[in-house]
Amino acid sequence: MRYELYYWPSIQGRGEFARLALEEAGADYVDVARKGGKGGGVPAMMRLLDGTRVKHPPFAPPFLKAGNLLIGQTSNILLFLGPRHGLVPRGEAARLWTNQLQLTIGDFVVEIHDTHHPIAAGLYYEDQRPAAKRRATDFLKSRAPKFLTYFERVLEQNGSHYLVGRTLSYADLSLFQVADGLRYAFPKAMRRLEKKLPRVTALHDRVAERPRIAAYLASGRRIPFNQSGIFRHYPELDR
Amino acid sequence: MRYELYYWPSIQGRGEFARLALEEAGADYVDVARKGGKGGGVPAMMRLLDGTRVKHPPFAPPFLKAGNLLIGQTSNILLFLGPRHGLVPRGEAARLWTNQLQLTIGDFVVEIHDTHHPIAAGLYYEDQRPAAKRRATDFLKSRAPKFLTYFERVLEQNGSHYLVGRTLSYADLSLFQVADGLRYAFPKAMRRLEKKLPRVTALHDRVAERPRIAAYLASGRRIPFNQSGIFRHYPELDR
Repeated sequence: MRYELYYWPSIQGRGEFARLALEEAGADYVDVARKGGKGGGVPAMMRLLDGTRVKHPPFAPPFLKAGNLLIGQTSNILLFLGPRHGLVPRGEAARLWTNQLQLTIGDFVVEIHDTHHPIAAGLYYEDQRPAAKRRATDFLKSRAPKFLTYFERVLEQNGSHYLVGRTLSYADLSLFQVADGLRYAFPKAMRRLEKKLPRVTALHDRVAERPRIAAYLASGRRIPFNQSGIFRHYPELDR
Repeated sequence: MRYELYYWPSIQGRGEFARLALEEAGADYVDVARKGGKGGGVPAMMRLLDGTRVKHPPFAPPFLKAGNLLIGQTSNILLFLGPRHGLVPRGEAARLWTNQLQLTIGDFVVEIHDTHHPIAAGLYYEDQRPAAKRRATDFLKSRAPKFLTYFERVLEQNGSHYLVGRTLSYADLSLFQVADGLRYAFPKAMRRLEKKLPRVTALHDRVAERPRIAAYLASGRRIPFNQSGIFRHYPELDR
């Protein structure tokens, strides 16, 4: 089956967590909004988003079409893909735990985004810069260390190279993405923070070297980080 | 089996979504941090939160102990409880869809919280009031209508009294809670918004009248809304 992934075509955003899982799985998928021609582009995405005849309309991208299923919400897409592609261990306990870690990464992602948009996603960064500075300061002092130290501890307690069990799960791919994005957005702060995060840093590098992920990262399918995504580099916020 | 729910004892917060499901299910549970004596209170919660010998340490409350499982993240707790207590229809498609709706409610809850804490959860409201006013204005103008209209549309498309299928699911309980909390936090704005939300409003009332929910809401187990929770009433934010 060919999956159809729907997400904004010019940013990694939340769609990237699904892309990484699909790439690591070697799954057959089309990134619909990035595809030209008939049935592609953003209009194809908007048709499903606004369509009143869609049975299970998503609130926002990303969403995944898998046969008759239309699945929205990042962690829900991964909950669906994980067992089908060996990206989560077997058994209910491991699957709930992996979902829990993914949800915690999702909470972290919201806070990362809101460092540059603390007032409203619909306003420009420039219109909320003073608030962004305050929020980013608190984020780098309190929240980022709290989240990152948590994942460091999970890796340590698991006594493994991975967050869950003895093999790679989609939560590892997602933690890679967050660490990678934080390096882009906050290079100065991350150089400082990573000194206390040997396991998270090693996980990042280990994931980046997996053959399919390495090939993906080197390909045109990987959209570069940019100033429209979740992870943005504003030097005045990186302290 | 007696469940153990762990959450802050003085607020509804995110724990309330789990409480409502447990109450509607008539499940045997203890709200550990609200219980006095040995093995109760906040210290019991902190032991699991900070314990380095906990196999699957949660990042934050709420979390649920069910036998040997320790399950964190609100939507994950409901993903676990739903099938066990008839709070979600059978079948993978319905369960993914219910989870998706719950996750969207979770996103909404973050934005509701951040109306009064746009800069940092660790600062007092009074220290971020101007930013809160801006964020709340955008929230009431753009975000709340967008989320609420979405759920109104889901109810309409489902042609039913419920969000999913023909019976109550945990997503309905959660939407009740959000509507109830918004009425507390933003009574003025909600009187205006609810004129265009007949189905969401009716769902709220229908859930409140369910025998077990009505008994719960009238009991001492329901913590009243207050100025420490997610839903807070600051008249200057309610416009």
